[in-house]
Parts: sequence; structure tokens; C-alpha cells
Amino acid sequence: MPASIDAVLLRLDEDRQHALERLFALLSIPSISTDQAYRGECARAADWLAADLRAIGFDASVRPTTGQPMVVAHAKAGRSDVPHVLFYGHYDVQPADPRELWDGDPFSPRLIEGARGQVICARGASDDKGQLMTFLEACRAYRECGGLPCDVTVLLEGEEETGSPSLPGFLAQHADELAADIALVCDTGMWDRDTPAITTMLRGLLLEEVVVRGASRDLHSGLFGGAAVNPIHVLARIIADLHDAPGHVAVPGFYDGVEEPSEELAEQWRALDFDEAAFLADVGLSASAGEPDRGLLEQIWARPTCDVNGVVGGYTASGSKTVLPAQASAKVSFRLVGRQDPDRIRERFRAFVRERLPPDCRVEFLSHGGSRALQLPIASEALTRTRRALLKEWGREAALIGSGGSIPIVGAFKRDLRMDTLMVGFALDDDRIHSPNEKYELTSFYKGARSWARILNALAL
Amino acid sequence: MPASIDAVLLRLDEDRQHALERLFALLSIPSISTDQAYRGECARAADWLAADLRAIGFDASVRPTTGQPMVVAHAKAGRSDVPHVLFYGHYDVQPADPRELWDGDPFSPRLIEGARGQVICARGASDDKGQLMTFLEACRAYRECGGLPCDVTVLLEGEEETGSPSLPGFLAQHADELAADIALVCDTGMWDRDTPAITTMLRGLLLEEVVVRGASRDLHSGLFGGAAVNPIHVLARIIADLHDAPGHVAVPGFYDGVEEPSEELAEQWRALDFDEAAFLADVGLSASAGEPDRGLLEQIWARPTCDVNGVVGGYTASGSKTVLPAQASAKVSFRLVGRQDPDRIRERFRAFVRERLPPDCRVEFLSHGGSRALQLPIASEALTRTRRALLKEWGREAALIGSGGSIPIVGAFKRDLRMDTLMVGFALDDDRIHSPNEKYELTSFYKGARSWARILNALAL
Repeated sequence: MPASIDAVLLRLDEDRQHALERLFALLSIPSISTDQAYRGECARAADWLAADLRAIGFDASVRPTTGQPMVVAHAKAGRSDVPHVLFYGHYDVQPADPRELWDGDPFSPRLIEGARGQVICARGASDDKGQLMTFLEACRAYRECGGLPCDVTVLLEGEEETGSPSLPGFLAQHADELAADIALVCDTGMWDRDTPAITTMLRGLLLEEVVVRGASRDLHSGLFGGAAVNPIHVLARIIADLHDAPGHVAVPGFYDGVEEPSEELAEQWRALDFDEAAFLADVGLSASAGEPDRGLLEQIWARPTCDVNGVVGGYTASGSKTVLPAQASAKVSFRLVGRQDPDRIRERFRAFVRERLPPDCRVEFLSHGGSRALQLPIASEALTRTRRALLKEWGREAALIGSGGSIPIVGAFKRDLRMDTLMVGFALDDDRIHSPNEKYELTSFYKGARSWARILNALAL
Repeated sequence: MPASIDAVLLRLDEDRQHALERLFALLSIPSISTDQAYRGECARAADWLAADLRAIGFDASVRPTTGQPMVVAHAKAGRSDVPHVLFYGHYDVQPADPRELWDGDPFSPRLIEGARGQVICARGASDDKGQLMTFLEACRAYRECGGLPCDVTVLLEGEEETGSPSLPGFLAQHADELAADIALVCDTGMWDRDTPAITTMLRGLLLEEVVVRGASRDLHSGLFGGAAVNPIHVLARIIADLHDAPGHVAVPGFYDGVEEPSEELAEQWRALDFDEAAFLADVGLSASAGEPDRGLLEQIWARPTCDVNGVVGGYTASGSKTVLPAQASAKVSFRLVGRQDPDRIRERFRAFVRERLPPDCRVEFLSHGGSRALQLPIASEALTRTRRALLKEWGREAALIGSGGSIPIVGAFKRDLRMDTLMVGFALDDDRIHSPNEKYELTSFYKGARSWARILNALAL
């Protein structure tokens, strides 16, 4: 017999302290996927999660890949004629640099008093360990109260922060095992701390690295300055050329496939009455630097971008060194919308760079992955039930929002498993994900778990 | 009675092995001035030199500064009516990184077989310990053969590689003690391995660091990309704007005070028949990236430049991170010629940067020093005598050359002590100064000492 939702919610409330201890244990593992030095820590996080899933009745296993391992787990509702959901999360985290800007050890999680109640502070607290544990805690409570209301498959990956290189192959190889009626993804946020949200629109992402090389070795700028080509200058010119107007990308063909949001969505967004000034002021800015004829929500949800995420060349320690460096490099990312094709844009970007290379310069490109943008149907039965469940928990209608970030798994589920995804998460805009002092609100953690309990119940009715 | 030049040259030839052992002892001291960890080693090098100077009859002392100490030493010719020379060198060296590119320990000097005879391999072998010891060995031979032909003051500093911060104050404080008829500086090179050179033209140097700041913290490029200003883009635009044509600097007023070389010097330079292609090919380049209407020697000796020596912002480790950084910075250096004024150019550069800052961006400037260019009169009696001495030793006329690098002491001697400087040195272009496997030719060391013996003799006649 399935557990009653009231019993499950009560159990979640009673077990809060233990839930927090479990999350802290996971947050203590520095599972930084982009840095080979932390490979063992990623494996440790995967093992920890598989063990926890086994402890709550899942048939769980760790599956090696050429990169970081996957965790796959299955549990049955104990009766037939129930929906089957596939839950996805990721256990890997961003690097914690610059560490000196953290108020404490990024991998020693602790509760601190935030502006609006207690928050959990640690790398990964919000992105994505805190979020994924909300779902696991909901499942745990169901098991302890009698049984799950749906069949549940859990897929946790360790390469989300590095562009998920192993995921497409893994999905193709395990398409039958991972098949479900609908996917649930928790890597998203609330509209504000009182209003839950369902994300129906995601930007795609293309990651490229450019290395410009000149002389065969670093040169003394006194002996060669005025004659030898300087790769920093060449790279700076390329970066400067990437935009020909505020927010407007100059790579030819970049805007092919860009679509305007539907009138229905645009109307929803206007109704959100978004406070642009407050959003920017929170990070020390007073005005958007993006396309001047677009609202800010449109700029970050529905418009494509190009940003340099890192640049380095020559002498960068303290003081001065009169060196003409042999090379300079930049990491460039493009956010994509509509039907923009990452493969085509990659080629066009590379041609754009090559056209700007002077004599004696060479360029090397490194690809860090690419994914298309996604738009999800907003009138489905699952979406309607989820909105109802969230309304019960929060006392407010969920906002239907877009997201400027990318969640490549959602595209892969659609493309490879022909499955739609419900994106529900409890992060807040000020969670400082990818930044020092990342946090997750205690409220997000507790009410997030209760929300998943209600959603699983609603989907099974 | 002064020693005869023939006896002195013979003594230098007989004492070669001991001279080499003395140089090796000095090269074994890792006197890296830019790194506080080596402060004790700089003091040890200063002590070693003062002791050596005392051993050859100088009244020598180590003088503390707020940075690395100075060594000052005096010796008289033993007769009046002789010229008084002030010899300058520096005992500090550049860091040895990247150490893994050295074929041996940078501070365990050794002789190795070079392409054209034996070379001394060690950090500082050429810049400047080998060079300064050529002068000390000449003085030693004179003392051992009866006495110096001139009054000699020696000034050795330990901060040349860090911009000589203590030097101006030290010169001002000890102007009377350091007064002489002419200064001798050995921190320069030969024209080629068979042709000695006297450097009569030095570029000045202005060092600036620019830090551009945007948001109050690093941002997620998915959540803020398209709206938040990106300091890397702003900095790249500034760097790109610094040049408006190949080799041509766009900062308004930058060329104020630039002078064309005299027809006499230009004629000398043409006569040198410089192999531009070979010079560039040696570092993997095929063409000059400088002003197209100028010869390469003119570009690096007589034209001003602007080069970015280092740039950094955002995520620069391996892999990718979708961050919008809060800041980006660049180290910029200007090589100056003629009467260009570093203080005025600093102000104009800073205004140039400020004009290019979009809303919500701030800039911080750090100054790493500045010095004017120098041109020395080429028809003086001292220069004529020195040319004659070098002709005797090398069998070839000395080339009168420029130098793209800066030697701030020469400007300070002119400004603070009202003294001209004779710049004679025996380094070669391929000595790899500031780079791994720095070397000094054994021929430079032995014939350099003989050259100084002849120059001191010629100046005293």
C-alpha cells in the first residue's frame, strides 16, 4: 500500500536533522570534475550516493565511464499501473577558486545565519548536491512510510560542470534501462524565496578555447618590442571584435535560428514584474550591458550571448616582467537559443578567429562541448499536476520561467530518450553558485523535499 | 708607477683559471631580487663582492637600503692628475623559472661546449655577474702589476631586476661620494661575436598595470550572461585600441618628443648590414609586426612601443568554467625614445583607459616605474679613446648601437650626478638572459676583462 502524503510529509519534518547530516557528508567530498587531481573524490561521491540509495531500497550501482562515473538506481512502487519517473541530478561541483574569498573551507559545510534564516554554506550546497538530496529525502520518507507512489529511476552524473562528455554515449547505450514516462530535473531555481517555479525554457551552450601562438619562446620586450608580434594584442583584437554593439555578437551567421519567445510566455514574463534594478544592484551593477532594445529577463532567458570566461597570457604574478609572451589564450562560451546549431556556430567562430590572425601567428582550438537550447510544452498533464502540487506546498502559483544557464541533460533526454522533462528546483538567485560562499537556504532544502513528495504523489494519482 | 698595459694583459691571461673560479663562486649564490625568499642570498652576494673588492685593495663596504644592499668601493691610482671613473654593475638576477626547462641547476655554474666554443651556463652568467666580473678582473690585474691607471669607484646594486627602487634615493644621498668624471656600465652587448659595441642610445620604459572591475563578485555566465558587463571584454577593447596601425600607438600625444636618429647614426646602422630575417627566424618569426616603414633595428632601438606583458581574468585552469569574472587585469609597458616624458604618458594612458570604461566599470592603476630614454654624445673624447681600445683588442671597429632595453642607472647618472656613461659590454644576443639556460661565452669573459684593461689604460693616457 502506498504511503499517505500526510504521513510522508510528517516523516520529512521529523527527520530534518538526519537529512541535514546526510547532506553535509556529501558536501564534504570535493568532487571537482574539471580538475584531474580530484578524480578520486568524484568516485568517492558516486560511491557515497550509491550506498545511500541502497540504504533506502534502491537497486543502485556505480557505472564507470571514460570520465567520472554515473550512478544509476531503480526502485519500484510495489504496484503496477503507476507512472515511471527518471530523476536526474549531478554530484560534481565547480572548482572553489578563488579560495581566499571564502569565509571558511568550501568543503567543510556549515549552517550560518543568512539575511532571511539559516543557510547551508559549501561548494555544491545549491549546485547541485543540496537540490538532488531534496529528491532522495522525499524517496526515503516514502520508503519509510510504506512505499513509493511511482516507479523511480535515478541517474546521477559527475560531469555536468564540464559539459557532460560521457552522457550522450551513456544514454544511447542504456536507453532501455533509463526509459521512463517523464524526466525530473532539479538543477533549477525558484522565482523568488516565496514563489516556486517550473523552468520551461533553457539556453544552449557552446564552449570553445582559443590559444594564439607567436614566437617560439617568450621574448624580452626590450630586445624584441616593436618588431615581434604580441599574441596578447592579437587575442585582444579578436575578443574586441566578437561584439559589434552592446550585447550583439559579430560572428557571421550567429543569429541563424534565433526565435522570439511566444506571446503567451512573453505575457507570463511581463506579469512577473521583475525588478531589474534590484537584480543588478545585488551584484554591484546599475545597468544592463546587453542589447538595449530587450528587457533583462529576455536578455538572459531568450537571447544568445558570447562571453569570454577566462583569459591569460604572459606574466601575471605581482610586480612587472618585460616579457613578450609566446602565447595567450581565452575560454569563450556562447549561450544559444531557439534552433541555433552549436556545431555550425563552432565552425563559424573558428573561421572568424582564423581570419583575424596576422602573419607568424597560429591558433589552436579546444572544444569543451556544445548543446542546443530547449523549449518545453507548457500545457501538458504532468505540468498541470506539478503546478498543483507546488501550489499546495508554497501557497502560491508556480512561475513558468526561462533559464539562462544550460542543462544539457534535458536536451539529451528529448533527443535520445524521447522524453519530456519537468524542471523544478529550489535554488535562489543569490545562492552564489560557481562563486565563493555558495549557499542553499535551509528552507529550500526542507520545503524542497516536501515539494518532491507532493509532486510524486500528484503524478501518481 | 702605473702598471704597463702589456704586463696587465699578460697577468689576465695567466690568471684565467682563477678568474673563472671566482665567477663560479658568485654565480652559485641565487641572488634573486624579486623574491623575498632570496633576501638572504642577495645579502650574501653583496658580502662576497665587498670581500673580493677588499682583496684587491679597494676600500669596500656593504650599504643597507630598504630593499637589497648596495656595494660601494673606492681605490686610488696612486698618482694625481688621472681621471676618476665610476663603474656600475648589478649582482641580482632574474628568477630561474621555469626551472624544468634548464638542462641543469641554474645556480650550479658549469662550462659546456657551445656551438662556437665553451660557454658558462648559469642564471646571471651574462646578466650581469659575468659582465661585472670582467671589470673586477681587470682591476685585479692592475693591482697585481703595480697599480690602477685611474681612480676607480665601484657601485654594485641588487635591485636592477626589480626596477631599482632604492637607487634614486641612494644616488641623491651619496652624490658627493659617487662623483666621477665618467660612468662605465657593462650591462650591454656586443654587435656580434666578433665585433665589440658601444651602446649610445637606450630606450626608456614606463610600466603600468590596469585592473578593470565590474560586478561585485564573479557571476554565473548562464544566469547573468547577456546582461552583466564582462571586464575581460572591456579590457580586450582597451588593449585592441592601444594600436591603430601595425606598431603605431594610439594614445593621444604618445609621440610627443620622439626624435628621428641623426643621419650619422642612421648611416652607421645601415652599414651594420643587419640580417633581419635571421634575427626573427631565431625565435620562430618570419616578418616584423612593427611599423612597416621602419627598418627592424630602428624599430627596436629608436622607436617607441606599447606592449602588454601579461593579461589575466576569469577561469584559467584546465577545462571550462562558465564564469563572468568580477575583474580582469593587464600589465602594460611602454618603451620610450627621444624626449618622451614617462610622467605625461602615464597620465595620458590612464585617461585613454578611463575614456573607454563603460558604465558600472571601475579601474585601478598600479605604477611599476618609469624612466626616460637616453642618447649619448658620440663625438666625445672618452668615446673616441674607448673605440681605439676596443679596436686594439678585437681587431675591429666597435659598432655604435642602440638598445631596445632600458638601463635606468644611466638615466639616473645623467640626471642626479650629471655624468655621461660609457656603455660597453660583452653579452651576445643568444645569451638567453631572463630565460632558461642563460650563458656567457668564455671568450666574452676573458676578452671582456682584457678590453676593460685597455679602456682604463686609454682613458688615463
